[in-house]
Amino acid sequence: MKKHFLFTPGPTPIPPEALLSMASPIDYHRSAEAVKLIKDVLEKLKAVFQTQNDVMLLTSSGTGAMEGAVTNLLSRNDRVIVIRSGKFGERWGELCTAYGVEFDAIDVEWGNSVDPQMVAERLGKRPETKAVLSTLCETSTGALHDIESLAQITKERPTLLVVDAVSALCADDLQMDNWGVDVVVSCSQKGLMTPPGLGFATLNDRAWEATKSADLPRYYFDLRKARESGLEGSVPYTPAITFIVALQYALNLICSEGVRNVIARHARLAEATRSAVKALGLNLFASNPANTLTSIRLPEAVDGKAFVKMMREKHGVTYAGGQSGLSGKIIRIAHLGWMGEYDVIVAISALERGLAEIGYDVPIGAGVTAAQEVFHRQSTNEA
Amino acid sequence: MKKHFLFTPGPTPIPPEALLSMASPIDYHRSAEAVKLIKDVLEKLKAVFQTQNDVMLLTSSGTGAMEGAVTNLLSRNDRVIVIRSGKFGERWGELCTAYGVEFDAIDVEWGNSVDPQMVAERLGKRPETKAVLSTLCETSTGALHDIESLAQITKERPTLLVVDAVSALCADDLQMDNWGVDVVVSCSQKGLMTPPGLGFATLNDRAWEATKSADLPRYYFDLRKARESGLEGSVPYTPAITFIVALQYALNLICSEGVRNVIARHARLAEATRSAVKALGLNLFASNPANTLTSIRLPEAVDGKAFVKMMREKHGVTYAGGQSGLSGKIIRIAHLGWMGEYDVIVAISALERGLAEIGYDVPIGAGVTAAQEVFHRQSTNEA
Repeated sequence: MKKHFLFTPGPTPIPPEALLSMASPIDYHRSAEAVKLIKDVLEKLKAVFQTQNDVMLLTSSGTGAMEGAVTNLLSRNDRVIVIRSGKFGERWGELCTAYGVEFDAIDVEWGNSVDPQMVAERLGKRPETKAVLSTLCETSTGALHDIESLAQITKERPTLLVVDAVSALCADDLQMDNWGVDVVVSCSQKGLMTPPGLGFATLNDRAWEATKSADLPRYYFDLRKARESGLEGSVPYTPAITFIVALQYALNLICSEGVRNVIARHARLAEATRSAVKALGLNLFASNPANTLTSIRLPEAVDGKAFVKMMREKHGVTYAGGQSGLSGKIIRIAHLGWMGEYDVIVAISALERGLAEIGYDVPIGAGVTAAQEVFHRQSTNEA
Repeated sequence: MKKHFLFTPGPTPIPPEALLSMASPIDYHRSAEAVKLIKDVLEKLKAVFQTQNDVMLLTSSGTGAMEGAVTNLLSRNDRVIVIRSGKFGERWGELCTAYGVEFDAIDVEWGNSVDPQMVAERLGKRPETKAVLSTLCETSTGALHDIESLAQITKERPTLLVVDAVSALCADDLQMDNWGVDVVVSCSQKGLMTPPGLGFATLNDRAWEATKSADLPRYYFDLRKARESGLEGSVPYTPAITFIVALQYALNLICSEGVRNVIARHARLAEATRSAVKALGLNLFASNPANTLTSIRLPEAVDGKAFVKMMREKHGVTYAGGQSGLSGKIIRIAHLGWMGEYDVIVAISALERGLAEIGYDVPIGAGVTAAQEVFHRQSTNEA
């Protein structure tokens, strides 16, 4: 009997009732019941995106939604700024290259967050810049970008701010309307506690205006068609209806708890995790860590790839390793979605045990104690 | 207590054990177990596509796979032939238009199938045509195109034959390798008995050669990346792992029955359905009907939209209505995927009852008797 625990930043664990909902007989996606379902889900997604703008539903991973943002907003030979501080910032650049959009990269050392002032300066030099493309949480490093400050810069200019909130939605705050973010994309398998397979995009009026002149080719990810269909409780092409059913369940949980409370819960889990990591004598990888996940720089002596493998096989605990240049050098522990305090305790408990087992000198109990202290203090403060 | 029966040509009913597999806790798509799963599924898909070529897995509906075929094979200003005999043939044309590919349409009256000789003549006049884009079964009409004959024409020329087998895979024969079809696309929610959300594409060597010079922009649907990843048991972006798990179950069923036997079963179900329709004094809509679904031209007096609605609400039976210009004029009954003889009996029984209830003079029992006779004769012949 080995119990399994999933701490990857997507997919994330799915509430049992949502899992069970997918075992129900499938239904036709054009039925009156499906129309009602899709309308309900699109309405609740607005609360999650903290916006009054329409949310568009796509059958794709988050990358598909990113592609939709690029192709619906931009034209060939447009110039944009891409903030690259990890694998997913790089993806914005790759998408631009694929579609012939020129970009200025603002390269930030992996693990760091962009200095908004740098973006302001770059925009000062190139005021014709059509858009700034950023991540909210760079999932490959666990670093959080200051989107509120970036929005203050872009909203006074003709430049759109396009944010990949793929991993951070529900975990780190993103007030699309209040802050003046123009476009947000995300997907189902992170904070939304639903399997991978649904992408989302939402655009404000400024962004919709830009779609009128955008000339990049698009069909499957045509957001105007998705918007029109969505208003009718439909989608342009056969959707992953099974996941929409599960998503409704997850959204009901989120809306019952309240989006602001969901984000606050993630902040508590992240604080406890960071405190535990430090108590174990380990270093956080991100200078401004997100609530979404915690990246830990492994000691030189630890082979990260072997460690992740051993933890899964022996302890039933799945962490994510590092990607690209960080392969083997960091581990990433997500506390994202269907996660509570006792999940963090398990993640830290396993980390202590695993490091001790591979001979790393770790103060057994220090991590879980630190996490316990944070949770205890938090609940005392609340009371 | 109302039991529900789904006869739409996608989604189609899903085997209970495949449904239940989706209720299992989700796992990480980069785990060793997931690699094994993806490799197994890709291998079994080859049997279904009747090919030795690699099959690529996409997280999208079938339309996404169609877009991938266009963008990976073609270049701006390429000229192609699109066979339009319904909504999905039209979609090939819309995709070409979206990407700046010029096309000659061969327009066939809806319900009819293309005359291969017409394609040969058109290619004779325009030998530089890069590709012929067709459906196998045009789902909007139920008509089957003679892909074997089309392949005989294209394989002797530098023109690629690209086939949308979205609805017909597993139901109507498509011998990719034997016939010399260059590209086939399909998806999960039809003959493959899995929810919508997975798209598939497979290319032969000639088609891969074409991808080298194709200059249309693509990223999410880049088939070269999907192929490379697939060889490693992976996918370029987070896949709908839940559906891959269910698909493995469905593919095991298909491979146990044998792909040729699965197609033969669909042929039997289709024959019985057509016989029943005729016995009820109704007309088939397609001149060369597919095994995938049976389209029925409704009598003038019957409001098809109201009939479909009534059948769902009162009888728990979901047929598909007509699309675009056929709205209200036809109904479509799929006998596709997780379907046996007794499903056809239910579909026909309900049709008789429903038509009688709306006052149409239908010989009660004649449809089910005709279907019974076909099934009885078939089983006698087998024995």
